[in-house]
Amino acid sequence: MATRREQTSNESRELILNAAAELFAEKGYRQTTFIDVANRSGISRGSIPWHFGSKEGLLLAVLERSVAMVRDNLAAAPQAGEPDFEQIDLGVGALLALPTTKLFVTLLVEALEPGSPIRDRYVEIHNTLRDHCRSWLERLPLPPDLPVESLSVAIVGAGIGIHQQWLLAPDRVDAAQALAALRTLVAGILPAGGTGGAVRR
Amino acid sequence: MATRREQTSNESRELILNAAAELFAEKGYRQTTFIDVANRSGISRGSIPWHFGSKEGLLLAVLERSVAMVRDNLAAAPQAGEPDFEQIDLGVGALLALPTTKLFVTLLVEALEPGSPIRDRYVEIHNTLRDHCRSWLERLPLPPDLPVESLSVAIVGAGIGIHQQWLLAPDRVDAAQALAALRTLVAGILPAGGTGGAVRR
Repeated sequence: MATRREQTSNESRELILNAAAELFAEKGYRQTTFIDVANRSGISRGSIPWHFGSKEGLLLAVLERSVAMVRDNLAAAPQAGEPDFEQIDLGVGALLALPTTKLFVTLLVEALEPGSPIRDRYVEIHNTLRDHCRSWLERLPLPPDLPVESLSVAIVGAGIGIHQQWLLAPDRVDAAQALAALRTLVAGILPAGGTGGAVRR
Repeated sequence: MATRREQTSNESRELILNAAAELFAEKGYRQTTFIDVANRSGISRGSIPWHFGSKEGLLLAVLERSVAMVRDNLAAAPQAGEPDFEQIDLGVGALLALPTTKLFVTLLVEALEPGSPIRDRYVEIHNTLRDHCRSWLERLPLPPDLPVESLSVAIVGAGIGIHQQWLLAPDRVDAAQALAALRTLVAGILPAGGTGGAVRR
């Protein structure tokens, strides 16, 4: 069992992570200071490097938690172990749910910097989604001319791009309908009745 | 014919726009100053507000040029007037070609700000791509249960998301293969032989 002291420490850590995630999303990584994080979280400025070492350490911890959230969403669907379209949608949804989306978009800019320490973490999130998509697709009777890897990139890409269009124009873009269209596309390449998890039977 | 003076003015304008587009992509909009733009472009700092009014005016002009570039790419394909998959791919490609991609990703953060002046411009680019995609799809014998509007969001979304995955992991992600898979998906919902522009006959 965690001691009282450890509990307090874990709570502080969570408060700092929540505040940092909000601030990185709102102001961007570079513009956020330890003082901002201290003010937002109510935790003293001096505690932050004690928990996370540096600002980069804090950023990596924020991303680590987001990777875990995407993984949890992928695993949380009822038929765990049998990935399907809904789970991939939930995984992409976790990546893109507000306010996380803004964080991911803000950090995408950082990730594109040459030599960025967060690029690997970002790629890891995309990999997790693609792996999940691939293991779903591998159970489907796909036509032989359609490489599972390429199709995974296209499907995860559609999830990302649909949500970005929706974020910018929620009144014009119906993300749920677009995801349904994507699912119909996938069902269309399968032999009749062989839709696996693509369309509920 | 433009006078010598007008020519010089247009050249200065282009130099400023090029420098601003690069700097916004590299440093972000907020971190870029008129002095940075002057240093990069070789045009005096005082000329910039003369051409563009304010920093926001400069940003809008940079985006305006990008919208025009996307439009030109959509219109430039050989069979102009008959939109097809290649043109949409070229259009998305213009949106996402380096170094423009980084600019668009950087500015996406600004566009997500509540009340952002560039959000409309951003939505306009997405609309242009979706309209183009829709007018291509409308010429295809799509199944009746597949709304053209939703399918446009999914296809443009896939283009955006595929390129973003590729940007972060060019060694792992084959964007061309993923686009080919997307095209196969679209062909899969059409009656045999009725692929229109989806797959070259």
